[in-house]
Amino acid sequence: MGTPRIAIIGGGLRGRIFAETTRDHPGAELVAICEPNPTRAAQLATDPDVATAASIDELLERGSELDAVVVATPDFAHEQPAVAALEAGLDLLVEKPLATTSEEAQRIIAAAERGGGRIVVGFENRWNPLFQAARHQIQESGHALLSQRALLQDTLFVPTQMLSWAALSSPAWFLMPHSLDMATWLSGAEPVEVFARGVKRLLPSLGVDTYDRISASFAMSDGSLLDLDSGWVQPLGKSSVFEFRFEVETEGDSFTLDIDDTGGRHATAERTSTLGALPHDHRGRPQGAPPAMMRDFLDLVAGADLDLPGADQGLLITRAIEAIHRSLETGSPEQITP
Amino acid sequence: MGTPRIAIIGGGLRGRIFAETTRDHPGAELVAICEPNPTRAAQLATDPDVATAASIDELLERGSELDAVVVATPDFAHEQPAVAALEAGLDLLVEKPLATTSEEAQRIIAAAERGGGRIVVGFENRWNPLFQAARHQIQESGHALLSQRALLQDTLFVPTQMLSWAALSSPAWFLMPHSLDMATWLSGAEPVEVFARGVKRLLPSLGVDTYDRISASFAMSDGSLLDLDSGWVQPLGKSSVFEFRFEVETEGDSFTLDIDDTGGRHATAERTSTLGALPHDHRGRPQGAPPAMMRDFLDLVAGADLDLPGADQGLLITRAIEAIHRSLETGSPEQITP
Amino acid sequence: MGTPRIAIIGGGLRGRIFAETTRDHPGAELVAICEPNPTRAAQLATDPDVATAASIDELLERGSELDAVVVATPDFAHEQPAVAALEAGLDLLVEKPLATTSEEAQRIIAAAERGGGRIVVGFENRWNPLFQAARHQIQESGHALLSQRALLQDTLFVPTQMLSWAALSSPAWFLMPHSLDMATWLSGAEPVEVFARGVKRLLPSLGVDTYDRISASFAMSDGSLLDLDSGWVQPLGKSSVFEFRFEVETEGDSFTLDIDDTGGRHATAERTSTLGALPHDHRGRPQGAPPAMMRDFLDLVAGADLDLPGADQGLLITRAIEAIHRSLETGSPEQITP
Amino acid sequence: MGTPRIAIIGGGLRGRIFAETTRDHPGAELVAICEPNPTRAAQLATDPDVATAASIDELLERGSELDAVVVATPDFAHEQPAVAALEAGLDLLVEKPLATTSEEAQRIIAAAERGGGRIVVGFENRWNPLFQAARHQIQESGHALLSQRALLQDTLFVPTQMLSWAALSSPAWFLMPHSLDMATWLSGAEPVEVFARGVKRLLPSLGVDTYDRISASFAMSDGSLLDLDSGWVQPLGKSSVFEFRFEVETEGDSFTLDIDDTGGRHATAERTSTLGALPHDHRGRPQGAPPAMMRDFLDLVAGADLDLPGADQGLLITRAIEAIHRSLETGSPEQITP
Repeated sequence: MGTPRIAIIGGGLRGRIFAETTRDHPGAELVAICEPNPTRAAQLATDPDVATAASIDELLERGSELDAVVVATPDFAHEQPAVAALEAGLDLLVEKPLATTSEEAQRIIAAAERGGGRIVVGFENRWNPLFQAARHQIQESGHALLSQRALLQDTLFVPTQMLSWAALSSPAWFLMPHSLDMATWLSGAEPVEVFARGVKRLLPSLGVDTYDRISASFAMSDGSLLDLDSGWVQPLGKSSVFEFRFEVETEGDSFTLDIDDTGGRHATAERTSTLGALPHDHRGRPQGAPPAMMRDFLDLVAGADLDLPGADQGLLITRAIEAIHRSLETGSPEQITP
Repeated sequence: MGTPRIAIIGGGLRGRIFAETTRDHPGAELVAICEPNPTRAAQLATDPDVATAASIDELLERGSELDAVVVATPDFAHEQPAVAALEAGLDLLVEKPLATTSEEAQRIIAAAERGGGRIVVGFENRWNPLFQAARHQIQESGHALLSQRALLQDTLFVPTQMLSWAALSSPAWFLMPHSLDMATWLSGAEPVEVFARGVKRLLPSLGVDTYDRISASFAMSDGSLLDLDSGWVQPLGKSSVFEFRFEVETEGDSFTLDIDDTGGRHATAERTSTLGALPHDHRGRPQGAPPAMMRDFLDLVAGADLDLPGADQGLLITRAIEAIHRSLETGSPEQITP
Repeated sequence: MGTPRIAIIGGGLRGRIFAETTRDHPGAELVAICEPNPTRAAQLATDPDVATAASIDELLERGSELDAVVVATPDFAHEQPAVAALEAGLDLLVEKPLATTSEEAQRIIAAAERGGGRIVVGFENRWNPLFQAARHQIQESGHALLSQRALLQDTLFVPTQMLSWAALSSPAWFLMPHSLDMATWLSGAEPVEVFARGVKRLLPSLGVDTYDRISASFAMSDGSLLDLDSGWVQPLGKSSVFEFRFEVETEGDSFTLDIDDTGGRHATAERTSTLGALPHDHRGRPQGAPPAMMRDFLDLVAGADLDLPGADQGLLITRAIEAIHRSLETGSPEQITP
Repeated sequence: MGTPRIAIIGGGLRGRIFAETTRDHPGAELVAICEPNPTRAAQLATDPDVATAASIDELLERGSELDAVVVATPDFAHEQPAVAALEAGLDLLVEKPLATTSEEAQRIIAAAERGGGRIVVGFENRWNPLFQAARHQIQESGHALLSQRALLQDTLFVPTQMLSWAALSSPAWFLMPHSLDMATWLSGAEPVEVFARGVKRLLPSLGVDTYDRISASFAMSDGSLLDLDSGWVQPLGKSSVFEFRFEVETEGDSFTLDIDDTGGRHATAERTSTLGALPHDHRGRPQGAPPAMMRDFLDLVAGADLDLPGADQGLLITRAIEAIHRSLETGSPEQITP
């Protein structure tokens, strides 16, 4: 095929990264930004050759020729643009989670089957070199997994300042797709049952009606343990907006990955922060896991043979997080339909 | 009263610490070591004035005058010596857990009520300065607790080399009394329900028929979350025999305590280890949390007015850990009787 | 002898610690506070039985019976009270450095020789359990030392807010006595030559005319290397007011001691700080290295046979830091007279 | 120009990285490996289209058409192949240091002036994202630099097992080009004077006649301090083969970069190691700083306008490290000719 033609749907922080990465990639062409807010759309378009539209439907009605789209709308708003794109036969990179109900996820998958496009779900931590190294070592060792334990949490900045739609999501929907996908990717096992607890106190008092924090205990298909904790109420003075600590224990090894700990610290007169890589490298190219993931998607669209997380995985994670929320309601362990 | 007269029951690692601390304390007298192995007993006695006996019963039959005893026998062997001492009206410091069944714990408590002695349960982490500082800050802040999360685990050294009786215990009985007592002490709340999962694979294959690792999710009486993980199968090459990480989140603060991380590292040609304080200070005095706890017990016996963890707390922790093991059997959340 | 009678000279932060420790010690009696500011003096006295005086001379003129004094005046103001106390035959604990000129140090030593009292210099890091453990391991190993390297620095808080007399001192006079004494104590070697560089830019611009930072490269008597860096201009937002990192390399081992890293972190809405032990333990007793040092001094005065850092060591450190300042002036390596 | 044609000179670890990166790069062609050991040469060639030769001279005599070469021979063996390539008009990437005498460095530079090729010196840490982020923050802040302090050291593995020619080098020649180049790049200042000390004890006893460790104190052209320490005798049991800690202090900020601390740890039955990124990414592409640097060099050769460390910087670093060794001989501070 020729150079793939790409549209980005959703003009937020993530849409901007995907747009920049596409523009920077020699093997792809950014042709449109779909975003209802025209100012935001224009900011991401930057170039008169890049079209803007309020929605993917509008864009398709206009007759734009596309090969693939990226859906970077809020968590709960994936279905409509994903289905529209897939029914048009386009390839899809959709931000995690695939959807926030399994019915929506199944409708997205059905649309892909009808249209013939491929689905990639944006579990971006698979592009983190530390997780890649741990997975390599686990696989090389041949040791069976015993347990995994992960904490992924944000400061109050995320639900109260960064996301306008936090009350429509939860720490489980927003954060656990990352840690749960990673647990399945490292272990090769699937979650089969979950018991969860939550606390809902501080965020509601701040006007955001969702859980402060959720803990989930999974039984995995290989008999290993998995404990996930995610929350949204860490104090604003933390040295990093997020904290991601992942622990893996096998019959011979243990791995401790402090993903947010880069080894760099920067102190000012006010506070000490973690110093991490800049969003762009010294030649202005987007760097980090999200651009690396996006480049793989672009190469996949252009014909590369790559093993990327697909619709089945997206559906599994959605079902597991649904089961977390069911368990929060019932107070009992809940099965996760495979 | 005069100088309290103390006997130590159990001549293992812990008994040695308590014997040394007693001998070093100006306000107490070590009068006997009760230990069935006479070589060990003699090692701890060190001084001809210190008697040895195979058991507390033997010692009492000989007519020894005592004020208090310390029970430092294996976890499952607390009841008999504790009851014997308490029925003789002596004060008791008993290693955690108070007992490994609530029936045993209740019989110990009944013996105290009959004899009039006091029970102190050895939740030694209350004497760790870092936990003390965190508790002080939490109480000063007035912020309500949202969640606690703790990992306390050992390398394979503990169940396969240090303890001869590991198969009669579990990571929950051996380690979670520490983390669970701490959670109640920091929060002022009690555990009311627990859901637990375990994996039992590596230790049985090594001839030790118990759990490799247990995770437990608690509902607390104040609505906060508590997640505990404990295991016994970390690789022998870890930099420390134990790992203890405790996280507390309130409505305004967060605390992360890496108890095993002293800030000191020692590398040799073979490996890198954590460097911690020596067991004795520069003047040969026992130092660290266990001696500090022992000194408080000795002062309590001598008449000091101290708030030490007692029988009620010991019973609560025993009941909670019983409930963990019930949940491991039933696969359901289990209530913790107060 | 009876219970030693102690006076504290200097009513600042340090004087308060020494007064509290003395009052708390069963084997010593706090009899007086010498401090020109009567409000401060009264705050430290707390008890009508404790006398206050503007100076040690005034106290001695009044005929107070004393056994020992602690001099906790500013660095440059040790000579007068030390000489007065020593000429009266009293034992002396003097804060590091012994003096800020070797002439003063020698006059203090001469006074001790005339009066017969003993001098202890307050190199308190010898009472830090981590340094004690490292020294123990080095001595046990029998490995020869190759190099030491230490960073001891403060935030701007110390020279601009805590100390009124910072311009009369320097990072070398205020901080390097700690790191240099430790280097000699760990190695058993003495500094024989030093080359130093300094920068003097930020503090003068803030009205404090002294060095921002000083680095010193020592030749040691055993052929090993020693590099010390100390500064006073770290940003106020650092997680700890001080940073103390000490590295030791022998022919078989290496040690890295992050003395300010306790393993505890406390985040608030504003910032993240290191969480360390409280100044008092759970029973209100002063804890940490300075009280431990003070207790050893009190026991020495009462007759204990203890090996504490004395006048010779105090003079050596003063001479070495004088040599640092000479090297800053000359730009050349300077010999350190033994 | 067309696709640049590249030869790699030196078939060691580094040559392998550069060969792989060239082969992987769409905009360059690997045409030859120059390496006297034919087995090694064949290993790096991997493809029948890639020629092998014992030396660059042999290759040039054969009439190979080349655009650029990479010199990855031992530190002391850069001059001959560099001069040969530059006289042939080729562009040159040469491993740090440019040369180990300033005379050699000047002859290399003269050859470039004669032939017209460009020189890039492989100060690869400029491609480390953490250093890039620190430099960005320093430049953004506008704060003047006060001091820098760096430790870069290896375990005994490097001089006793990895390098056959360690005795012909030193920790200063092998390691300080990295830390010293970084200090100039972060500060924009140049070293003007250096005072150095060294210890030479353990490596000679192991049959490697060079320094165990060297410390160097620099005066910088902007009045800031710079202290570098480098050694080759850390114990083999360290968690990482190298340790690189870099500290920067400005009038408003401080930066602490633990370059070897990735946030990942891997424990086995024997020891705990740092877990870092794999040498190749999930698609088999070389990753990390050396490949990133190599790609910039390849793009420069192909016509890109990039600001890479050149001959002047290479000469400056060589002169500074010569001055370190002069100071080790004279025991005095030595000027660094600009």
